[in-house]
Amino acid sequence: SRSIDLAVIPGDGIGQEVVAQGLKVLSAVLPQDVKLETKEYDFGARRYHATGETLTDADLDALKQHDAILLGAIGDPSVPSGVLERGFLLKLRFAFDHHVNLRPSKLLPGVATPLAGQPEIDFVVVREGTEGPYTGNGGTIRKGTPHEVATEVSVNTAFGVERVVRDAFARAQARPRKKLALIHKNNVLTFAGHLWTDVFNRVAEEYPEVTTEYMHVDAATIYLVTQPERFDVIVTDNLFGDIVTDLAAAVSGGIGVAASGNINPSGEFPSMFEPVHGSAPDIAGQGKADPSATVLSVALLLRHLGYEAEGARIEDAVSADLAERVGKPARSTDEIGEALAVRVTG
Amino acid sequence: SRSIDLAVIPGDGIGQEVVAQGLKVLSAVLPQDVKLETKEYDFGARRYHATGETLTDADLDALKQHDAILLGAIGDPSVPSGVLERGFLLKLRFAFDHHVNLRPSKLLPGVATPLAGQPEIDFVVVREGTEGPYTGNGGTIRKGTPHEVATEVSVNTAFGVERVVRDAFARAQARPRKKLALIHKNNVLTFAGHLWTDVFNRVAEEYPEVTTEYMHVDAATIYLVTQPERFDVIVTDNLFGDIVTDLAAAVSGGIGVAASGNINPSGEFPSMFEPVHGSAPDIAGQGKADPSATVLSVALLLRHLGYEAEGARIEDAVSADLAERVGKPARSTDEIGEALAVRVTG
Ligand SMILES: CC(C)[C@H](C(=O)O)[C@@H](O)C(=O)O
Ligand SMILES: CC(C)[C@H](C(=O)O)[C@@H](O)C(=O)O
Repeated sequence: SRSIDLAVIPGDGIGQEVVAQGLKVLSAVLPQDVKLETKEYDFGARRYHATGETLTDADLDALKQHDAILLGAIGDPSVPSGVLERGFLLKLRFAFDHHVNLRPSKLLPGVATPLAGQPEIDFVVVREGTEGPYTGNGGTIRKGTPHEVATEVSVNTAFGVERVVRDAFARAQARPRKKLALIHKNNVLTFAGHLWTDVFNRVAEEYPEVTTEYMHVDAATIYLVTQPERFDVIVTDNLFGDIVTDLAAAVSGGIGVAASGNINPSGEFPSMFEPVHGSAPDIAGQGKADPSATVLSVALLLRHLGYEAEGARIEDAVSADLAERVGKPARSTDEIGEALAVRVTG
Repeated sequence: SRSIDLAVIPGDGIGQEVVAQGLKVLSAVLPQDVKLETKEYDFGARRYHATGETLTDADLDALKQHDAILLGAIGDPSVPSGVLERGFLLKLRFAFDHHVNLRPSKLLPGVATPLAGQPEIDFVVVREGTEGPYTGNGGTIRKGTPHEVATEVSVNTAFGVERVVRDAFARAQARPRKKLALIHKNNVLTFAGHLWTDVFNRVAEEYPEVTTEYMHVDAATIYLVTQPERFDVIVTDNLFGDIVTDLAAAVSGGIGVAASGNINPSGEFPSMFEPVHGSAPDIAGQGKADPSATVLSVALLLRHLGYEAEGARIEDAVSADLAERVGKPARSTDEIGEALAVRVTG
C-alpha cells in the first residue's frame, strides 16, 4: 500500500489558514489506499521569538525524513528583515539543495489580469535556487559610518548552472510549443552572464527541437506585460527569477493563485512546495486569504511524488472554481477550501 | 549672450535617426539669443570595428569640455554582448560620475498602455548609476570547464548611496505628492540592503513632509502593474533601477517615449541624456523609429541646463503630438520630428 509522509510548516500570518485548506484538499483528492501522514512543525516568528532559533541542524534532520514539505508562509514584521528569510527559507532551500525552483504561470479563464485584452498566458519559470546573489556571500565594513562599504557576491558555477539549464530544456522538450527563453543580463554582468549563456548554448545543441531565445532581464519585464503569450519555459538565475516570477504572478491572476515548488530532482532531499505569496500579516486571521495558491502548490507536490492524475484533478478544480467566482461575492478562506475539497472528491 | 556647447553621439542603429530629430527640436525651441554649438562623435559599433576602440582617455577629455551630451543608442549584434555596454556606456557613466540616473514615467493622454483601465501614471525613478552590481567587479576561474566559477560583486558605499538618496528626497519634497519609495531586496541581500535601508531612514528624518515606504523589488514589479498610480518618486540601486525602469516604460506608453538623464549633479562632468530604448537594429534606417524618447531626453537636458521653460515646451509638444496620433496612420521618424519642431517654435 502506498503512503505519503508529509512535513507541514504552516508558518506565520495567513500561512496557518491557507495550509489548513491545502491539507483538506489533499486528503480529499487522495485515493483510499494512499495513507497520508502529516507532521506539523512550528517554524517562523513564534519559534524565533521564543527560542531565538530559526532552523537548527536537528530540525533539518527531522525534515529530511519526510517525503515532501508543504509550507504556508514565513515572515513577520516583528522580526528584523532578513532573519527568517536567510535563517529559515533560504537556509532550507540551500540545505536541501532545492536547485529547481519551479513557478508556473497560467492565466485561467475568468481570472482578472491587470493587462488589457485578456492575453493567453501559460508558461513556467525554472528559477535556479541555490546560487547567484542568494548565497549570502559578501559583507560590510565600517558599518554605520560614512565610510561603510557593503558587498553582495553572486556566485555561479558551471555545475549549478548546467543542472538547472538541463532541467529547463527537458521541460521545454516535453511541452507542445517546445520553447525556452534564457533571461539574464549578460551585457552588464559579463562574468556570470557568459557562463549562463555558454552553458545554455551548449546544452541547446542536444535539444534541436527546442526553440531558444535569449533576453535581458529588463527587456523580459517589458515582454511579460506586452507579449506574455510569447513565453513557454523560462530559465533564469535566482534573483532574476525572484523578480520575474512575481511579475509573472501579477499578470497571470495575482499571487493569490501562484504556486511554487522548491525541487531537489534527485530525491536526495525532500522537495518543498509553497505559495509564492508571503505571510500577509495585514489580513492574517481574518479568513480573507485565498488558499488557491497553496492548493495549487499541493498539486505540484502530488505531481512531484508521481500522483499526476490527482495533481491534475486539483488544478482542474481550482480552474473551475476561479471561473465560477466571476461576479459573485467574495468567499472566506475556509469556504474556498471546502468548495475545492468537494470538487476533487472522486 | 548665452550658449550651449553640446556633444552629440548618434551611435548605432536608430540612434542616428532619432538624434537628428532631437537636434531639430532643440534648435527650434531655443530662443534666438542662445547660441547652440554641437560636435558629433562617432562612437559605437563602426568605430569599434575600425579601430578596436570604444572610449579612450582622449575621448573622455574631449567629451569633458562640453556642457552636456546627447546620445542616441549604442549597440549592435555584430559586437559581442557586453563590449560596447561595458566599454562605452557604463565606462562613460562611471568616468563622468553619473550617479543620478533619472527616468520619468508618465502615461500621457491618448497613449496606449498594456494595462487595463488607463491608470494615472506619473512618477520618476532615481536610479543609482555608479555602484551596485554594475561595477564590473568579479571574475571567472576555470573558464569553459565543468568547474567554472563566475562571480559578480555588487559594491555599495555609504557615500554612493547617501548622495543618490538625498537627491531623491529633494525631488520628492519638490513634488506635490511628496512620496518616496525605496526599492531593494533587503531581506535577501542583507549587506547592501541594510546599508540602503539605514541611509534611507536616516535621511528621511530630515524630510518630515515626505511620506516614505520600503518595497522589495519583486513586490515592486507587482505594484507597477497593479497600482502604478501609487508611485511618485522611487529611489533604487543600479540593477533594480535598470529592471523597474524598463517595466515602468512598458506600462507608461512604451520605450518609444521613455527618456533618461545620466546626471552628475555637481556639474564637475557633463551629464548625458539618452532615450531608454536601444539601437533597434531590426528597424534601423527605415524611418520607423519614434524619436519622441530622444526629444523628451532633450527636454531633460534643457531643464538640467536651466532652460526650464524650453524643456516644458518640448514636453507639452510631445504630449499634444501623442494625443493627436490616436487613430491616425503611423508617421515616419522625420515627420514626427518635424511636427514637434513646428509645435515648439515660439
Ligand atoms: C521571502 C524571500 C526570501 C523569497 C525569495 O526572495 O526567494 C520570496 O520572495 C520568494 O520568491 O520565494
Ligand atoms: C545597455 C545597458 C548597459 C543599459 C543598462 O543596463 O543600464 C540599459 O539597459 C539601460 O537601462 O540604460
